Amino acid sequence: MIMHYSVNNIPVGVLGASGYAGRELCAIIARHPRFSLAFATANEQRGQRVRLGGRDVTFIASDDAPLADAAIVFAALPHGASLPWVERTRAAGPRVVDLSSDLRPGNTATPAVYGMPELGAATRAAIRTADVVANPGCYPTSILLALAPLAARGLVRAGATIVANAASGVSGAGNAPKRELLFAEVADDYRAYGVGNTHRHVNEMTATLAGFGADVDLVFTPHLLPVARGILATLTVPLAEPLADPVAFFREAYAGEAFLEVDDAQPTLRDVVRRNVVRLGATMLAGTRAPMLLVTSAMDNLVKGAAGQAVQNANLMCGLDETAGLLA
Amino acid sequence: MIMHYSVNNIPVGVLGASGYAGRELCAIIARHPRFSLAFATANEQRGQRVRLGGRDVTFIASDDAPLADAAIVFAALPHGASLPWVERTRAAGPRVVDLSSDLRPGNTATPAVYGMPELGAATRAAIRTADVVANPGCYPTSILLALAPLAARGLVRAGATIVANAASGVSGAGNAPKRELLFAEVADDYRAYGVGNTHRHVNEMTATLAGFGADVDLVFTPHLLPVARGILATLTVPLAEPLADPVAFFREAYAGEAFLEVDDAQPTLRDVVRRNVVRLGATMLAGTRAPMLLVTSAMDNLVKGAAGQAVQNANLMCGLDETAGLLA
Amino acid sequence: MIMHYSVNNIPVGVLGASGYAGRELCAIIARHPRFSLAFATANEQRGQRVRLGGRDVTFIASDDAPLADAAIVFAALPHGASLPWVERTRAAGPRVVDLSSDLRPGNTATPAVYGMPELGAATRAAIRTADVVANPGCYPTSILLALAPLAARGLVRAGATIVANAASGVSGAGNAPKRELLFAEVADDYRAYGVGNTHRHVNEMTATLAGFGADVDLVFTPHLLPVARGILATLTVPLAEPLADPVAFFREAYAGEAFLEVDDAQPTLRDVVRRNVVRLGATMLAGTRAPMLLVTSAMDNLVKGAAGQAVQNANLMCGLDETAGLLA
Amino acid sequence: MIMHYSVNNIPVGVLGASGYAGRELCAIIARHPRFSLAFATANEQRGQRVRLGGRDVTFIASDDAPLADAAIVFAALPHGASLPWVERTRAAGPRVVDLSSDLRPGNTATPAVYGMPELGAATRAAIRTADVVANPGCYPTSILLALAPLAARGLVRAGATIVANAASGVSGAGNAPKRELLFAEVADDYRAYGVGNTHRHVNEMTATLAGFGADVDLVFTPHLLPVARGILATLTVPLAEPLADPVAFFREAYAGEAFLEVDDAQPTLRDVVRRNVVRLGATMLAGTRAPMLLVTSAMDNLVKGAAGQAVQNANLMCGLDETAGLLA
Repeated sequence: MIMHYSVNNIPVGVLGASGYAGRELCAIIARHPRFSLAFATANEQRGQRVRLGGRDVTFIASDDAPLADAAIVFAALPHGASLPWVERTRAAGPRVVDLSSDLRPGNTATPAVYGMPELGAATRAAIRTADVVANPGCYPTSILLALAPLAARGLVRAGATIVANAASGVSGAGNAPKRELLFAEVADDYRAYGVGNTHRHVNEMTATLAGFGADVDLVFTPHLLPVARGILATLTVPLAEPLADPVAFFREAYAGEAFLEVDDAQPTLRDVVRRNVVRLGATMLAGTRAPMLLVTSAMDNLVKGAAGQAVQNANLMCGLDETAGLLA
Repeated sequence: MIMHYSVNNIPVGVLGASGYAGRELCAIIARHPRFSLAFATANEQRGQRVRLGGRDVTFIASDDAPLADAAIVFAALPHGASLPWVERTRAAGPRVVDLSSDLRPGNTATPAVYGMPELGAATRAAIRTADVVANPGCYPTSILLALAPLAARGLVRAGATIVANAASGVSGAGNAPKRELLFAEVADDYRAYGVGNTHRHVNEMTATLAGFGADVDLVFTPHLLPVARGILATLTVPLAEPLADPVAFFREAYAGEAFLEVDDAQPTLRDVVRRNVVRLGATMLAGTRAPMLLVTSAMDNLVKGAAGQAVQNANLMCGLDETAGLLA
Repeated sequence: MIMHYSVNNIPVGVLGASGYAGRELCAIIARHPRFSLAFATANEQRGQRVRLGGRDVTFIASDDAPLADAAIVFAALPHGASLPWVERTRAAGPRVVDLSSDLRPGNTATPAVYGMPELGAATRAAIRTADVVANPGCYPTSILLALAPLAARGLVRAGATIVANAASGVSGAGNAPKRELLFAEVADDYRAYGVGNTHRHVNEMTATLAGFGADVDLVFTPHLLPVARGILATLTVPLAEPLADPVAFFREAYAGEAFLEVDDAQPTLRDVVRRNVVRLGATMLAGTRAPMLLVTSAMDNLVKGAAGQAVQNANLMCGLDETAGLLA
Repeated sequence: MIMHYSVNNIPVGVLGASGYAGRELCAIIARHPRFSLAFATANEQRGQRVRLGGRDVTFIASDDAPLADAAIVFAALPHGASLPWVERTRAAGPRVVDLSSDLRPGNTATPAVYGMPELGAATRAAIRTADVVANPGCYPTSILLALAPLAARGLVRAGATIVANAASGVSGAGNAPKRELLFAEVADDYRAYGVGNTHRHVNEMTATLAGFGADVDLVFTPHLLPVARGILATLTVPLAEPLADPVAFFREAYAGEAFLEVDDAQPTLRDVVRRNVVRLGATMLAGTRAPMLLVTSAMDNLVKGAAGQAVQNANLMCGLDETAGLLA
């Protein structure tokens, strides 16, 4: 198939544009120097015009989307509803970045290329040529990028249990109207959910960690924060031996990465909201008989945890600078 | 010394009444059926009249407090500043409930009676006759009451590490004006602090756990929530063997306790704010090779985590019903 | 009809108990010294058991409510849906406090007794013997109680326009799941709504003000606050002549009222939430050629603005102390 | 004095850079295509390095500022402290945009050029050549830009009272640590302040309105919102005659203005935060005997209400495009 577009103006489409991730995608695309929005679908809100990223966007029905007009289609559809649209889009020609969990590791026997570029050169190469990229989940992005360098260098104690507590803003739960997400229910409250290692993201993380060759258990407990945006993951990691300078370790591991920040101070949500970054802090724990590392990882769940990372992947797929449209 | 008061009208005083815990104390005392407020001190705000618990309270300077007029004095002074006032108060006659960390286990070679009544009959007996009770810290109350039944029955795996992540509302940091506690700094944010197992409460918890005979490491990481009140602790506990029904276990362990609630659903801050309770949830974790238990523990940091528990201790010291003035 | 109950244990029912006002009603009734809850209906949530005011309440379907078992039925049903249930309840025997707007002045040709006791002795007398009381709306309660003493004494300038700006917490919009009420939509935002003098409460206020004999226009603009509870109304009132001491004026006007507070300081939401009070501030405005008064009026929309005032009315209807169950 | 810089790289300085407006200024300057930051002062925090707008900024003491190196100096100092620094800066050469109230109309007998470009061509011309521009206050910007077109066309009823209620996020109160601005004090609360037409901004607005030739009284009541950023002003304006289409009126009045938005829907804080715009809504009021208009005006107090408007003025002073660095 011959694409009739120039690298300076690459048409992209968004399926499922009315959700929080879909809106963020449209806003990033509106400010992107090379992408232009070919269509944005939202069945329930079709016909509505909204302002996103300084541009007016009119939602159309998914069935009316001119799929073949796009070079890249972002599928921001609900988990379970995405796969048929990925196939339909591929049949029409465009390559796909799928933001659902349908094609991620641990969720299907035949996962797509997992779109987490900072995992390294091999992952980036695979993303560049992929027809379909499975965009990672929000929690997995914040947690796996904190664990990957430790696992890759064999620093995690074999047979150990990594405890990953994380807290997310409410936008992570989507914008379908549910009583438990009303302002008067969420304000001033805080709770754990998906308790017992049962959250949908556990399989995605466990499968990816196994791919690193890490012989570990992972315990993941998410919490709901009374804020709109942001994730902070707090990871307790048993090590094979102490790290003399954990901050320096992560800085070296991610040297040259535009979207990974490592600081001496603790990262907070304010450091990362509306930006396409994961920001890490790391400290050895005092008072434990075996060496243990505490890593904190902050991220905007809608940007680096969803729409921003999706555009980062699309940049790679189109041969653009990975940071195009993603620096403040 | 002869106390000139009846059991129906017991005079109590508050040192350090202008902080959040001190104000909560005055409010609880105002509604208490047996206690009456003899004095409330606040050096900086002396002379100010505030309405607390439906009563007008006028703060006086600590040096002007008629210590000897009270049967019980609550010391809600800053850590480090409390000990001299405990001694001065004792010299004047009254018994003391000290809300600072000065006399808690792990903070001094000669701790006072640790005022956590739900630890059991021996603790209650010691509180009843104590001259000085060290009121537990907020995080330790929520965490130790979740761990105590497990430790007491030898269920925690020997040599294991308990990971205690907890998040607290901002009132836990006090009401001294600090830039980092301004609304415009805290709103929409979330962060870890005291990272590296360095928080002041670690010693208190470690010393108490050792007293239970538990051979464990504890890793404690507190976080700052953008809410005014409430603590939720999330505990990952390696067990010697699986618990068939963790909820039933805690229900049985705390049967008859007025201030311990155990529910099938996850406890949230809303369940506990403005109430003198700790509310627990418990679930075995899936997907770990060795048995691990997840316990969540919700509490109001200013009530059961401070002023409420202090009054609970004072009730015991005065021979009153332990719940007097503490049920909604 | 002979009621088979003692004044010490008066059975009351709640129709529409799952909304915010309905839940608040159940909680107040649970703590009320004389009322006991005969039934609580919630069609969608029938069968659910919830804890309200320290008691377990199980919702039943409205059609299953044993209406005749109650002495008083509180109807907390949606506007428009209430009237048939008021009639059905009356036919079964009980007297009714209706929290909807269906029977309020300005909403029907034949309004019920308007249940705002602080309007004076005649109103209280009418409430005591009423079969049906229309419980006032939240905004009208906060605004009319601020204006009534001025209107009653002829102090408002004839032909003038009173400007009433008010802001309400989100619980005022109910707990039906709507996208615009989601936490991630409401947090950090603030907006006017019902703009153009079109809010449902305008008629209720205009009709009541006309009943006072006030020859005024009223401009009412409500706003949505990012808080769960509370209303603050800010009223600009042209006067016929200056008031020398507006605070003293309101104190005298409401002398002896348990639920009206007047203070020198500006009332804030914190002063009133979870309490059955309206709290007023009043100041003459500088820099205007004709005399103008600024009155601020703070109130909890779910308590004095709904459930608390409903119980206050029911207390009067049952010959009880008006404050029964309503003081903290 | 000869300035040694090119129009492509204009050095600017910030006095008082650690406050909220000062930080916002540094962030806007960091992203500005033509301005570069010559210095940023903050006496208390001198030596501190902070990241603002993606650049590291190190604060220096005001006395160490190389004033003469800048073409434009922004003075973001406290009210009352600014004037001496304006004079000192002028003596060193640079032109000044002063964000304090010291040189605004109504605050001094000899006000500087009032930097509200949208007042029209004459104002813009005066700003372009001014040595010192007084940057308007936040409330006055949101209120005066809503009133100016009405006043300029003689539409406001002579002798009438305009009622301006407004609510601001907490950042408007600055970041000096004060107890009443702590998170635990402000959260869930809402209050009026500066009641009685006594706020510092009243003079600024009254003087400017008089300059329009409007014969009106203004009643201004500000409120404190539990949000970090944003102002919404709600204006009730008696008109000489009805406006057939108020939205069209404002659209025409502000045709071609980049930073004035007029919409059919009610503007909310979300529409404007982090953007250099005032967004207006307008509706004729029903139910009043004389014609009255309701105008709502939303704005980010730190951007169009402070730092953004300051840069807009500096753009004009330097002969740049007025929107340089100010479009998202």
